Amino acid sequence: MTNIAILGFGTVGGGTAQVLDVQKERLRLAAGGEIRVKYILDIRDFPGSPWEDRLVRDINVILDDPDVKVVCETMGGKEPAFTFTRAAMERGKSVCTSNKELVDAFGPELTQTAKAHSCSYLFEASVGGGIPLLRTLRDSCRHEDITSVAGILNGTCNYILTKMDREGTDFADALRQAQENGFAERNPDADILGHDTARKLAILASLISGRRVRFEQVPCQGITEVSTADLKSARARGKAVKLLGICQRNPQTGDISVMTAPCLVPADNPLYGVNDVFNGVLVHSGCVDDLMFYGRGAGKMPTASAVAADVVECVKNAGHTVENGLTDPDDTITPVPFPSALPGGIELLHGGDGSSFPRVRS
Amino acid sequence: MTNIAILGFGTVGGGTAQVLDVQKERLRLAAGGEIRVKYILDIRDFPGSPWEDRLVRDINVILDDPDVKVVCETMGGKEPAFTFTRAAMERGKSVCTSNKELVDAFGPELTQTAKAHSCSYLFEASVGGGIPLLRTLRDSCRHEDITSVAGILNGTCNYILTKMDREGTDFADALRQAQENGFAERNPDADILGHDTARKLAILASLISGRRVRFEQVPCQGITEVSTADLKSARARGKAVKLLGICQRNPQTGDISVMTAPCLVPADNPLYGVNDVFNGVLVHSGCVDDLMFYGRGAGKMPTASAVAADVVECVKNAGHTVENGLTDPDDTITPVPFPSALPGGIELLHGGDGSSFPRVRS
Repeated sequence: MTNIAILGFGTVGGGTAQVLDVQKERLRLAAGGEIRVKYILDIRDFPGSPWEDRLVRDINVILDDPDVKVVCETMGGKEPAFTFTRAAMERGKSVCTSNKELVDAFGPELTQTAKAHSCSYLFEASVGGGIPLLRTLRDSCRHEDITSVAGILNGTCNYILTKMDREGTDFADALRQAQENGFAERNPDADILGHDTARKLAILASLISGRRVRFEQVPCQGITEVSTADLKSARARGKAVKLLGICQRNPQTGDISVMTAPCLVPADNPLYGVNDVFNGVLVHSGCVDDLMFYGRGAGKMPTASAVAADVVECVKNAGHTVENGLTDPDDTITPVPFPSALPGGIELLHGGDGSSFPRVRS
Repeated sequence: MTNIAILGFGTVGGGTAQVLDVQKERLRLAAGGEIRVKYILDIRDFPGSPWEDRLVRDINVILDDPDVKVVCETMGGKEPAFTFTRAAMERGKSVCTSNKELVDAFGPELTQTAKAHSCSYLFEASVGGGIPLLRTLRDSCRHEDITSVAGILNGTCNYILTKMDREGTDFADALRQAQENGFAERNPDADILGHDTARKLAILASLISGRRVRFEQVPCQGITEVSTADLKSARARGKAVKLLGICQRNPQTGDISVMTAPCLVPADNPLYGVNDVFNGVLVHSGCVDDLMFYGRGAGKMPTASAVAADVVECVKNAGHTVENGLTDPDDTITPVPFPSALPGGIELLHGGDGSSFPRVRS
């Protein structure tokens, strides 16, 4: 039996507790032994919750308990997530996370900590939510020379664009409806300005290039300037408007180009049909050609399922560091401007090559 | 360094040699050591081939060489592939294959042989060609309670149906063009009668149910009766016609239903946009909801890339048996008729529930 702890009892943390409970038997078979939630860290009370007896408010209860072998960090944000993650790994506890902000900002440093303490730092849930993407790129595609990745990585934006396209709703109305339906936050800036997509793209670009690519290096345009006229004219040309994170890699030089922008996607590109809150990631490589991975990029249970898959891998590899694909902190790369043609017949909605887009400040 | 042998220097075997050569450096990193093709078995001569010096005609050269640790069986068919595979594993050599016929007929028996000799029998390339599907289902989704899989698993049929739909070509003409373009065999029966799809579905159903499902248990209708009128009327209803392999699983009872048939796929199903020679597999489970995997289901380099991924896994797990998801030979299950509704809004093109379709004889 392996005892684990969950940091943060919000949507993803609550979902993780639930997946670990509902799928207990399958997880036992997959991991080779029972997985038990011993603690859940939160500063709030949850009276009546079936996990009420596991709730603790002091991280040291978890850190000081040698029985806890794996920690799920589902708090989000940089602090105290960074401090808690590092402290857990310094005590040899593996950490599985959905926290893309932390992976982007300190993933390479935390990976070094994991290696130094023979434990693992895994983050499948941080990109593409429930889509089993990162492990697949690592295990099944590691021998592939990937030349591009283009992804619909933010379900909120895709929901808004789908609604504008299908119903002729303007941006403000579609956003309001997304908020009413729980698909957008009260403060939706991180989604609609493209920052969330840019962060996930930076993680993907790091994995594909084998170098460190930071969020702040991604030229970024969000969807706030997309009009119903844009969607109509795209539709008339047989194209769909999608907010994409794109990374192109030159297999000869290893140079990469990155950007986040609203794009025109032609009908023969498999991203064309990725609608509503779904995410899709199109990968191209010389040997295997096109691959596309589709699924729910957010949501309680899908995201929690990805966290659970990481927990299984940590349990199976107890005492070892699972390779997560991140490089050393200092092995950085400076992206270059995009070549003339984007992959998969994609064009920028508002023209240009994206080089004029502002970079984002964290 | 690990020495390997390739059995059969046809399309997939030749592609495997090529991928292992072109991607040598990445494969070395992925596997933790160089992978070298020591022998290629074929009865034909290939004068001028860069692999000419590795060609052997006698399987015993490979079987008797203790240096050969992994064998890629890319011959196809039951014999001599079965005898060669078993003999290799009895000598502790892992086998990676693209041979769906053999996996369907003797996969469980060969898995037992692998376990008895601490080597592995892997077959990623046998379903979905280059799509990294089986490893992903096994590693990332093993804790999921999968309730359905619906797949476009045969690129030839999808090419023909796409052509009939887009160009109004009738079945015979579309088939002829597929043959001229190298997308269909001279004897296309295994594809167009649905047998190839049924075989791949039987493998998927075995993995999902954890029981043995045989090809002969799959009710099967091919695409020979699909007319241009069918495609037009489907289009008018906003649907696409696709040859699908479908497996539905009742998570309460564990019962499964299987079938291969031309189906109507609604526009909001991600399989709707899977066209030409591409394959797509839609997976549904309670936690992660819908997942779809898209890519080239056939072709030299994509299929070979999947074989190469298996070689890497065998090399990394030398001396152990990698779990491949197949059960014991005697752990069979008898499929039950489908429940009233198919997954993902799919309907049978010609109505009914498929229970009247004939089973296929091997």
